[in-house]
Amino acid sequence: LAFEFKMNKMVEFADTDLAGIMHFSRYFVYMEQVEHAFFRSLGLTIHDTSQEKTFGWPRVDVACNYKSPLRFEDEIEIHLIVKEKKAKTLSYQFTFFKITEDGLVVTAVGTFKTVYVSLDKITGQFKSTVISELINNKIEQAPLAFIK
Amino acid sequence: LAFEFKMNKMVEFADTDLAGIMHFSRYFVYMEQVEHAFFRSLGLTIHDTSQEKTFGWPRVDVACNYKSPLRFEDEIEIHLIVKEKKAKTLSYQFTFFKITEDGLVVTAVGTFKTVYVSLDKITGQFKSTVISELINNKIEQAPLAFIK
Amino acid sequence: LAFEFKMNKMVEFADTDLAGIMHFSRYFVYMEQVEHAFFRSLGLTIHDTSQEKTFGWPRVDVACNYKSPLRFEDEIEIHLIVKEKKAKTLSYQFTFFKITEDGLVVTAVGTFKTVYVSLDKITGQFKSTVISELINNKIEQAPLAFIK
Amino acid sequence: LAFEFKMNKMVEFADTDLAGIMHFSRYFVYMEQVEHAFFRSLGLTIHDTSQEKTFGWPRVDVACNYKSPLRFEDEIEIHLIVKEKKAKTLSYQFTFFKITEDGLVVTAVGTFKTVYVSLDKITGQFKSTVISELINNKIEQAPLAFIK
Repeated sequence: LAFEFKMNKMVEFADTDLAGIMHFSRYFVYMEQVEHAFFRSLGLTIHDTSQEKTFGWPRVDVACNYKSPLRFEDEIEIHLIVKEKKAKTLSYQFTFFKITEDGLVVTAVGTFKTVYVSLDKITGQFKSTVISELINNKIEQAPLAFIK
Repeated sequence: LAFEFKMNKMVEFADTDLAGIMHFSRYFVYMEQVEHAFFRSLGLTIHDTSQEKTFGWPRVDVACNYKSPLRFEDEIEIHLIVKEKKAKTLSYQFTFFKITEDGLVVTAVGTFKTVYVSLDKITGQFKSTVISELINNKIEQAPLAFIK
Repeated sequence: LAFEFKMNKMVEFADTDLAGIMHFSRYFVYMEQVEHAFFRSLGLTIHDTSQEKTFGWPRVDVACNYKSPLRFEDEIEIHLIVKEKKAKTLSYQFTFFKITEDGLVVTAVGTFKTVYVSLDKITGQFKSTVISELINNKIEQAPLAFIK
Repeated sequence: LAFEFKMNKMVEFADTDLAGIMHFSRYFVYMEQVEHAFFRSLGLTIHDTSQEKTFGWPRVDVACNYKSPLRFEDEIEIHLIVKEKKAKTLSYQFTFFKITEDGLVVTAVGTFKTVYVSLDKITGQFKSTVISELINNKIEQAPLAFIK
């Protein structure tokens, strides 16, 4: 049963803007990449098309607090923690660390609340649904001590 | 003195993902476009390079709550409200409305807290600073009745 | 029968990079927006889900030649010309003009070759197909004089 | 002296569109990531701010030919070849391979022609310039046999 995951990454050129820093919207894409890698690390996929209906995880609430900017080719580490698991939802906290000579420096903290849905392949309509046993048996809420 | 702004837009193909809906990270780009259009409507620019130092508005905190998905070619209206004005920061609320035959339907609500900074053209370093008189004289906090 | 279209636009902040200019990959998104607006201007849609199969226009070949950079808040005009119409393909040329006090200045020229396909809603597989009569009756190849 | 480079990657969710495939514009971002990793592998950076002027590599011409679509979580390998080295320009060919059980399958081929420029830190103006000795001594044109 997993409740945390870490991913290393480098800030890409196309994710910077004319202020010379990583565009704030791209943090959400990086967080999503960590969420997806977390699922893959458990043999799961965030977008399951193997059944009659597709299953996915649209976002209900997201947020990010930026402490200091990231720049092109900065090496970063992103930590995911499962903040909350409910019948139909999973919530995560993501901490962005910049890897410096003096160690890891927190530069941003984000959160996602995501809901498990079935997605009709013909109509494209979403319906929230109870998390599958397969996923439920692999992901758990982090102990309180992990969530700041 | 302005405290609100509205922009109409259509959801673009490149902003959708394989779930058939607008990617959640792109809402932040649309919110930013409204913020920038609000500044332009007042004869201002969000990224002022006309002085010895550059001045800009990096984000401190952003968030979005998604109520229902948006799809390709959906026509939307985004309302900006100035939620809070402090000495160095401006905070906004953005409401996404889908334009339907039955009227406007709220599909998402987002917020930005932004800080006024000077940006050194050589070093690229940021420094938070008191909002310029020019901007201060044009933008004000919305009356409480406007902020839900 | 239409063979050209024009769209005005402003360069968005999120489309710039740390070199202070519009990122070269975003020109393709702008070209696509013009292509889609061209279709809409004819009562068509680029991604037709109204039938049993979905119909769309994936790209076969694209290119862009960049003459001078575009910057944040530059006002531009993009001209689309239908370069070639074949049984299953449509090719376009897009010219980017910067709107200056001295008139329009060409800053980039791009091309798309696109193919008409049906897309199976269940399997997601593509199959190239002859352009529908509806589309064929509305779009024609530009006279040679229009294509440089 | 290097003239080729390879990078492995997985197709990210945010790079797909509602047709269920990787958006064509994002191939250019992936190509750029390979170009930048190639420079880093040689101890170079694509955007050098260490001197009085900044030096970079804006694009002059880019193109991509798409043979078959890529989908979310497809594992790919991208090969870079230095197609041409001139006094002020470097041109690359990028081949996208999908990693399948039956081996590598070419799904797209792209090209960049890039020009070496100095970039004034104050005015932001570009000026094409002869490739620095440092770079010139590390990158060479591929032998003809490598370029198809």
